[in-house]
Formats: sequence, structure tokens, C-alpha cells
Amino acid sequence: MLRLNVGLIGLGRLGHIYAHDLSSRIASTRLVAVADIDSDLASRTAQAFDVPHAHVNSSDLIANPDVEAVVIVTPTDTHCQIVINALTEGKPTFCEKPPSISLAEASLMAEAAARTGTFFQMGFMRRFDPGYRAAKRQLEDGRIGRPVVFKATSRDPFPPSLSYVDPKSSGGIFVDMGIHDFDLARWLMGDVKSVQAIGGVLAFPEFTNVGDRDNAIATMTFSDGRLGVVDLTRNGCYGYDIVTDILGTEGTLRVGYLRETPLLVMTRNRVAHDTVPFFMERFERAYRLQLENFAENVLLGRPAPATIHDGVEALRIALAATRACETGATIDVSSVAA
Amino acid sequence: MLRLNVGLIGLGRLGHIYAHDLSSRIASTRLVAVADIDSDLASRTAQAFDVPHAHVNSSDLIANPDVEAVVIVTPTDTHCQIVINALTEGKPTFCEKPPSISLAEASLMAEAAARTGTFFQMGFMRRFDPGYRAAKRQLEDGRIGRPVVFKATSRDPFPPSLSYVDPKSSGGIFVDMGIHDFDLARWLMGDVKSVQAIGGVLAFPEFTNVGDRDNAIATMTFSDGRLGVVDLTRNGCYGYDIVTDILGTEGTLRVGYLRETPLLVMTRNRVAHDTVPFFMERFERAYRLQLENFAENVLLGRPAPATIHDGVEALRIALAATRACETGATIDVSSVAA
Amino acid sequence: MLRLNVGLIGLGRLGHIYAHDLSSRIASTRLVAVADIDSDLASRTAQAFDVPHAHVNSSDLIANPDVEAVVIVTPTDTHCQIVINALTEGKPTFCEKPPSISLAEASLMAEAAARTGTFFQMGFMRRFDPGYRAAKRQLEDGRIGRPVVFKATSRDPFPPSLSYVDPKSSGGIFVDMGIHDFDLARWLMGDVKSVQAIGGVLAFPEFTNVGDRDNAIATMTFSDGRLGVVDLTRNGCYGYDIVTDILGTEGTLRVGYLRETPLLVMTRNRVAHDTVPFFMERFERAYRLQLENFAENVLLGRPAPATIHDGVEALRIALAATRACETGATIDVSSVAA
Amino acid sequence: MLRLNVGLIGLGRLGHIYAHDLSSRIASTRLVAVADIDSDLASRTAQAFDVPHAHVNSSDLIANPDVEAVVIVTPTDTHCQIVINALTEGKPTFCEKPPSISLAEASLMAEAAARTGTFFQMGFMRRFDPGYRAAKRQLEDGRIGRPVVFKATSRDPFPPSLSYVDPKSSGGIFVDMGIHDFDLARWLMGDVKSVQAIGGVLAFPEFTNVGDRDNAIATMTFSDGRLGVVDLTRNGCYGYDIVTDILGTEGTLRVGYLRETPLLVMTRNRVAHDTVPFFMERFERAYRLQLENFAENVLLGRPAPATIHDGVEALRIALAATRACETGATIDVSSVAA
Repeated sequence: MLRLNVGLIGLGRLGHIYAHDLSSRIASTRLVAVADIDSDLASRTAQAFDVPHAHVNSSDLIANPDVEAVVIVTPTDTHCQIVINALTEGKPTFCEKPPSISLAEASLMAEAAARTGTFFQMGFMRRFDPGYRAAKRQLEDGRIGRPVVFKATSRDPFPPSLSYVDPKSSGGIFVDMGIHDFDLARWLMGDVKSVQAIGGVLAFPEFTNVGDRDNAIATMTFSDGRLGVVDLTRNGCYGYDIVTDILGTEGTLRVGYLRETPLLVMTRNRVAHDTVPFFMERFERAYRLQLENFAENVLLGRPAPATIHDGVEALRIALAATRACETGATIDVSSVAA
Repeated sequence: MLRLNVGLIGLGRLGHIYAHDLSSRIASTRLVAVADIDSDLASRTAQAFDVPHAHVNSSDLIANPDVEAVVIVTPTDTHCQIVINALTEGKPTFCEKPPSISLAEASLMAEAAARTGTFFQMGFMRRFDPGYRAAKRQLEDGRIGRPVVFKATSRDPFPPSLSYVDPKSSGGIFVDMGIHDFDLARWLMGDVKSVQAIGGVLAFPEFTNVGDRDNAIATMTFSDGRLGVVDLTRNGCYGYDIVTDILGTEGTLRVGYLRETPLLVMTRNRVAHDTVPFFMERFERAYRLQLENFAENVLLGRPAPATIHDGVEALRIALAATRACETGATIDVSSVAA
Repeated sequence: MLRLNVGLIGLGRLGHIYAHDLSSRIASTRLVAVADIDSDLASRTAQAFDVPHAHVNSSDLIANPDVEAVVIVTPTDTHCQIVINALTEGKPTFCEKPPSISLAEASLMAEAAARTGTFFQMGFMRRFDPGYRAAKRQLEDGRIGRPVVFKATSRDPFPPSLSYVDPKSSGGIFVDMGIHDFDLARWLMGDVKSVQAIGGVLAFPEFTNVGDRDNAIATMTFSDGRLGVVDLTRNGCYGYDIVTDILGTEGTLRVGYLRETPLLVMTRNRVAHDTVPFFMERFERAYRLQLENFAENVLLGRPAPATIHDGVEALRIALAATRACETGATIDVSSVAA
Repeated sequence: MLRLNVGLIGLGRLGHIYAHDLSSRIASTRLVAVADIDSDLASRTAQAFDVPHAHVNSSDLIANPDVEAVVIVTPTDTHCQIVINALTEGKPTFCEKPPSISLAEASLMAEAAARTGTFFQMGFMRRFDPGYRAAKRQLEDGRIGRPVVFKATSRDPFPPSLSYVDPKSSGGIFVDMGIHDFDLARWLMGDVKSVQAIGGVLAFPEFTNVGDRDNAIATMTFSDGRLGVVDLTRNGCYGYDIVTDILGTEGTLRVGYLRETPLLVMTRNRVAHDTVPFFMERFERAYRLQLENFAENVLLGRPAPATIHDGVEALRIALAATRACETGATIDVSSVAA
């Protein structure tokens, strides 16, 4: 079987899972190099997964001739430089969402992709979730007629650290959490013309210190007048709850579930079950299918299902929503420029 | 609109609800007389529902010329005499399940029905539940192919009083609780040839004192070899849980639900909802639809959807299960005679 | 038992159900008079429910000395005049939502209620639904901590007639459908400061002819900065789907359900169930409990749980949302004046 | 990290998955040898998973000094000889259920385990399913009081081939399908004293040719009088449906689920979702966790959570049920001897 020799840059929590996936769980990849600015972490990860090369600098990994393709899971503020480096070196590249929190940077990445013609795939793993894939198929089969309203909810079970949510690095709630929903909106419905948004610090007063919101709602008007709404919360304290409705003229699709373990506990006048703990439990399979898809796209010369353009446009909506939330005005998405 | 002038005998808990239904909730009936051996209760009920006549003796009510039809909700051990009286007087009669706990008595009632030709309807309200009715329709439409296995669960949320469960008056768990499931088995599948059964006192040791079981399971072989199973418990302490599966060659039907109030409470790692409290919450509508059906059958000259024969045969299965449970042997239902 | 002698004005679909409830299903009322501009309908209804008086003019019913209290279910544009008449005559009054589609009229009604001191109860039946009542109790018990986000969805299974949705009589989708959700928002969370909204004709092009929308979304900022969102659709073609989430700092409450009949149909690779057909199936019990509550409030001298002020304020939010939808601007609710 | 060098015997469908798990998905194992009587299959599998040794004879694999422990997934009729060989060679052994379809053979395996003292683990993967594990924990925590009734349903979505179900190789439906449920019964409740059973050929007439049943129900009386029931079907054509209830004196636990993809499709009056296709989708994780547990038990010197005794006793109940089904009598489990 054909196998793609992959180099993995960034070995944090998600990077560790990617290392496991790329080295063993995915039949079409071989993990030949890892890199992390923490050299110990790089060595330990290499050892754990029998990876021949451990680098500290991403550029060394990219330059390594054994590396045929690059997967990037580093902090968002490093994406631009590493991606452009990899594309310039002609190495097919996968980069985790968001491309950047800056539209200027994301545009530079898009230009690099266009200029070099190197394969680039944007990491929007929900597109690979069996639920969303099944929904997409049903949509295309006309099962619900014409889709007219997009409605998405994303609830995190607890807030990230303040340093993480700092909008200077995370981009704020609309970029950090919302970008998945904005990408789904584009993928399932089409381009977004304008947004309105509200938000606030309602559950975690300390968010005020860094300038982010813990709850926010954005409405969208698609280019052809159809409607959408995304609501985001950091205090979905009962569990990780991701639900998306697509209302059509002949039916509605709903993707999402709340129950993790197949156990019902029925006691005095009550039936209870547990909930999905967090994103890795919910999207573990989607993450793996996405990397598998990346490898096959590179090996078979197929186009990327999510491009840097998709990354740029989802980011543009998120930034428009942020601006709408700050001003109270309806914001034309196209007015948000680099 | 045609209205049937009904006399109601027995004003206990269920009788009170029937009084309300017959006097006002059902358009096709008028409650013209009530009877109870507690004369105060009879007077108070008559007053509450604007009923012209209150009797102490059932025979007076039956003889009352204003009474066109009789509904009987008295204790089981009085059914035989009252039913035979009403049938003999030519008054169309509805009698709550079970017909009797004695097959001899039930047979006498069947003979009276045959001899007099008076209309008689057996009270098996589950047949009027929208869920079971929909299941019956789907079955008849061939939606699940040929039905091959019948599987029923009945769980009471708490035990009745010891005096109530005393098999000398209740007939024991297979008669008291199981008769509904045995009737469903016959209604949905057909005649039962033989039964096996086990049971025990597992949750309420005091049941031993009166000689009843608090948990029991009976399997059934239908006349044509198809299979069935009924499990009964008095300690379904989370709620009133009635579920019936019919497995077919092309699909399965399941009737039942557990959630009463449309509220989900989602707290730290848990989703919970309430449960159906008891039989009146679960089958309120079925009880009303059943009386309505009785009135229309009498007014329009339609045959009874559940006859005394149905009562006799469901009782016969229940008694066979009781005997099977006592002996450990497979019992031929037809071997259980009056 | 004490019974309130009620006169019912308006005998359309809902009026017919109210007639049945008031005449028989509710123990604390007696239906002594009905009125409808269709005199035949009035007579027939009176006969069907054994009501002594049938009127054509609402003022005759109000003036009828047998009538102790008045229930009004007439078309919205007649509410103002009939309510003011009843209040002026000193008859305790129940009026179906919305009070009016005009804030000016609604304010006149509020003035009449204040001036006369006559008891007035606004018809917002969802407050009497067992699900919403349970949610309210859980909220008050602090079960989910502090409620911070209100989120409501209302989906009609099919569009009303064009003549019905004409905003000149219905007030448009935000008034006609949304007013229930805006009332819930106020009841469960508190006052609303400002709204944003979008909407469109997406499923039923003919709505353009009368100037209403078939889909709309409004976001709300409560006076203390908390957030809300309401989405409305006329093409929830799978069924009548009403869901409300209240997100708190310690949990979330969700009111709603989709399944009507307790039957699961499991066929080749699929499990299916039916849905709630429409509002009467979903809220039948709430309607009855509401009228019962009205009667008891009048008989026992208790205050109304929903006042004309509640009607005015829910209408004000609906009108603000309508204006927001037309302008794309954030609208201060308090800026919408009579 | 410590890794156990495992040899895998049997490379059929499940064997292939085990090869993948042992070679890469499980961190604590290294797959060093595979064996299959089909030498091509052995070579191909070795190549696919980078396994150094490929054998045709199981005895060669067992004798291979690189092999520290043996996993056996061969056809049931070969278990006895291979297991005894491995145990005699002192290689810790994992063997897929059932140990054998013959109690005599299973007893020989038990004797070999006792005589050699070599570690042996019986493959009952349901014990590793997160749902059943959570149920076991809740039981032990006293969450439902004292468990009094065990109730299990196993439904296959379609029948296996006739050659597979032939009781001469499969042991018949109670052994082949039921053994999982009988093991759960013992694991969650305790020893079984006696059984009753019924069964038939109801959906697939061709089963008659080989002498197996396609539907069967067995009831169990535990040694202390508690009750159980297991129902099995080959025509659960809507999907793979495995549900287990444990009724306690203070509550009930239910393990099971039906929905595979997190997508609801809501069309005209209907909500539908898909179902679990088959056992690998349902128990994929349990299989992996089981092998991981085996490796850790061997590496850390922990006792096996399921022993050959557990295999023998579950088989004994299955054989007792088979005999009960044939005779119609209550069968004492202890009367079934090798």
C-alpha cells in the first residue's frame, strides 16, 4: 500500500493525538519526523511512536528530504510563517484551523498557496464527522428540499484558561469557537453577505480582564437572502454540546448528540445519562478521517476539500461578527478586509 | 347528538375518573345514575357531577329505567354477579378488567352474555391507547412483515397495599398486572398454546405473607409456534414503565415512553428527565377513548372490540402462568379449565 | 364547589375548545353564555354544550347579569373594544394573546385595566404548560445557577392562509408567532433592552404578496446585558416544534419534545417516530389549565399571573424586532412607543 | 514503556482487527507473529502490519521464542487444542469466546489452566464496553439498591450463513449468541441455578435444515432466587440491538443504544435516525480495551478478569438453555455435565 511520509509540527495535546494517528492508526501514512520548540517533547514523542527524526525547528523538518508532506498543529500565531515556508518548499501542507486570527496573515497564506501551486488543506474536521457528512449527503440528495435556514450551537463544557482566550492570541470567541460553525455555514449553505451579533461576559467575570466574551450570538444573511444563526457559550457546563440544524422547505436535518456512555440510570422519578465530555470525545473519528483524507488527497492528486480560501472566508465572517458585536451594526462581510 | 344514558357502578379512584368522563368529557354519554355501597360517596359523586340518581345497590341502578347502559368498576370479586344481573336485564354492559380471578366465574359471565345476547364490552384500555392503536395499524399494514415475537414489560413504580395484592382477591401478579400484557399478546399475535414462568419475592419481603410475588416472568408459545415473553415487576421504582415490542420479519414496533414532562435538566455531566408517575398519567386518554368507544358501539349497534371471550382467554393465560410458576413445568393453556 | 359563571366571546376553532373546557372539563367554571357574530354558530355551540344564553353582540353577553366573568377569543382587531367594554362593566376578563397588534390599542387596554381596577388576565398559555412550569420552578430553585442565555425556537408545521398572515391583521411573524417566545423571555429572564433581527421569504413566495416573512430570527439583549435569541419558521414541515433553552451558569434547562405517539417503528437500518402535529396537540393541557387558573383567580381574589402589562411589553418587543428586521439596526425596545 | 510481544493465531475478520489493534492501536503490545492455516493470508497480514513472523501452524507460533503471549481467534472447534498447547508451553493466553461448544473440551481447557498455572483470559468483550463497565460500577456503588432482575436482549441485524449457524459448529443460538448474555448475567448478578427456554424457526425457514433456531428466549433463576431473562433473535432487521436491564430495589440500569450516526432526519410528520449496523460498530472499543487489558494483566501480573471458569460456566448455562428448549422442562444448570 502507498504510504505518505509525513512530518508533524506541533506536539501539544492535539499534536500528540495526530502523532498517534499518523504513526499507526492511519494505514496510508508513515510519521517520519516530528518537530516542537520543546526539544524534550520532540524526542519523547519520536521515541513513543518510533519516529526516525525529531526536530526543534519547523524549518528543519520541512527541509528534511524524508518528509513528503507537512501537518501543522502549532499555536495559531505561528501558522502563517510555517505554512508559507512549507508551501514554498513544495511540501503538501495540512494546517489546523484557524489559518490565523489576522486576515492579513491569512491572505498572505492564500497568496503563497496560489503562487506556489503547492497542495494545501485547511483543517476543518467537522466536515469529516460522520454526522455532518451524512447531513451533507442528505442535503445534496434533496432530502429536505431547498435548505433555507442554518442554525448552529456550540457549547464548551468549561472555559479555557484566560491566557488561551485572550483575543490577542485566540481572536476572541467568534474566531476561536465560531469559526467551525461559520465554516459549516459556508459548506452547507454558501456565502454569507452580512452579520449581526451580540455578546457579553455573563458567566466568567474574569473574561473581562482579557477582553473576550463568554457568550455570543451571531445572525447571518446569506448572499441570496437565506438566514443563519450561531450561538456560542463557554458555560455549557453539562457537557460538550454541538448541534446544527438545517431547515429546508421539505424537512430539517439535525446533527448532534449529548449522550456519551450507553447507560441510562433510572432512579426515583428520574432517568439520567451522561454527556459528551469534550471535543476529542466528540470528534476523535473526524480528526482521524481528516488526516487520512489529507494523505489520500496528496497520494492520489485529489484537490483539497477545504482550501485556504475556505479558511480565509470563515475567518472573515468571524471577524465581521466580532465587529458587529462591538458596534451593534449590521456588518457586510465583504467590508472586512485584510 | 345522540347520547347514551349511562349508569356507573363503583366509585373508587377509577370510578371517580369515569364519572368525570361519562358526565362531561365524553360527548356521546350522559351520566344518569351512580351506585356505590358507600351511600355517602354515591351522593357526593352524584352532586359533584350533576347526576340525577344515586344508588347504593347495583341492582337498583340496573333496574332504573333511565339507565340505558351500565359501566362496572367495582372490586373484581363483585363483577360476576353484577355483570350477569345487567346482562339479564338487557342493559348493554362495560366491565373493567379482569372479568374475575376465577375462570369458573368468568365462564358464567360468558354464558350469560351468550344466553342473553346483550351487548358486553371487556375493559382492556391499552387497546385504545394511541400508541398501541398505531402499532396495530402498522402490523395490519404489513409494515414489519410477519410478527414473530411478542415481548412486553410492565413495571409498577411502587407496590400496592398487601391487602390489594393478596392473591385471594387480586389473583396474583400474573392476573392482576399480567392480564393486560396477555390480552395484548392475543390481540396483536393470536392464541397462546403454552406458557412457562418463574417468579419470586425479591424486593418486598412482606409479599411472602400474603402469598404473592413481586417479580415474575412468563414465556409464551403461540398456537403456531411463535414466541412471547412478559416480565412484570412491582419495583420499577423509577416510574411507571410499560413497553411492548413486536418483532417482525421485516422490522420491529416498540410502544412505550418514559418521559412525562417535556423538560430536560442538564447539569454537571448529566442530562435528566422525569418519568411517567403511574397508570392514570400513562393511560388517561386510553380510558376516555375506551368509554367513548363503548357508548358509540351501543348507540350504533357495533360489536364490542373486546368481548367476554377475550377476558376469559387472557385470564386463562394468566392462570396458566401462575400454575407454571408454581410447578416449573410448561403448562398447556387449554388445560386450565374452570 | 364554587363555580364561576363565564361568558365566552368568539367561537372559532379555539373558542370551540374553550366552550368544551369551560362547560365541562373544568370543575370551577360554568359556561352560561356564548357570543359570536355568526348567530347560527352561537346557537349551535350553546346547544352542544347546554349553554343557557347565546348572543350575537359581545356587549349583550357582557351586560348579561348571569355572566360573572368574560373570556375573549375573538379576532385580534376586536380585542381592544371588547376588553375595554368588559372591564368598564366590571366583569373580570380573560383575553387571548396578542392584546392587539397596535401598541396604541394595547395601551388603551392597559389604561382601562388601571382605571377600572377590574381583574384582567392576558392569555399566554405556555406559562401553564407543565414543561414551562417545571422549568420556571427549577430556575427559581437555582438548579442551573444564574440564567444567562435564553434561546427559543418556534416552528409551525405549515403556513397559515395568506389572509391570516397578512401583517395588517396578524402583525407579522414577530407579533403573531414570536409574541409567545418574547413573553417567555420576559417571564423567565426579565426585561429586554434591545433587539436585532433578520428575516425573509424563503419557503413560501406568496408571502411576499401580503408583506410578511416566513422565517425570522431576533436576538435580544436583556436590561442587565444577558442574551437571548428567538428563531421562527413557518416551514417546520416535519411537525410542530417548540423548544426553549435556558442556559445558566450551573446548567441548562430545555423544554420541548417532538414525538407525539409512543410508537417507534424500526425498519431496515432506521428508527422512526411521528411528531407533534400542531399547537392544540402540544398545548391542549396548557390551555385548559390556563382557564382553570383564570377561574380560580377570580373566585379566590388572586392576582393575574399574566397582566395587560405583560401583553403590552411582549408586543413592544415583537414590534421592535419587526422594526429591527426592516432597518438592520439595533432597536431599543423602549424606543417603540404607542 | 513496557510492551508485550504477542503472537496472534487466526486471521479471519476479527483476527484482522486484532492484528491492527495489537500492532499499532494498543501502546502496550507489539505484534511479533501471526499464524493462519491459510499461509497467503498469514504472509499478507504480516506484511500489512509489519509483523516479523508469519506461521501456518499455531504450534510453530506458540513455540516461537519471540512470542511472549498468545491471542487466539480461530474457529471455536480448534480452541481446545491450541489453548492447551499454549498453556502447556507456558505462554499467557487470550482466547475468544466461546471456549468450546463442548463442555468436555472446555473442562479439559480448565484443567490445563489449573495444571499449568499459566495465565489465561477468556474473551468476553462486553465486560470492557464503557456502558457495561459503567453499569457494573453503578451496581457496586449501590446506586440501584440490590439488583433483583437481569434482562437482556440480543438482536442480530441479519442471519449468518447456514454453515455458520449449524449447531454442530456454532453450538446453536443459545451458545453462539446467548453466551455473551449468560456471561453478563453471571458477571452482574451471580450464579444461575436453573433455566427454562423456548425457541423456534420463525423468520428463516432454512434454519430448519441445519437444526438451529432463529429466535429463542430463556429465563433464569439465580442461585438465590433472583430472576433473569434473555431473548435472542436473528431477525432484528432494523439494526444490531443489544440492551441489558438490571432492575434493582432502588432503581434500574439500562445499557444500550440504537443510533449510530448523530443525524436526525425530520421530514413530513416523521423523525428518523439510523441504527447500529453490527457488532464491530457497537463493540469496537470494547474489543480494543479487552486486548489492552490482557497485555497489562500479563505485564503487571494481574489476575484475569474473565477466566476459563467463566467460560465454562457461561457455556453450561447456554447448554442448559438448549436442553430446556428441547424438552420444555426446567433444567438445573448443575445437571449439565461434561
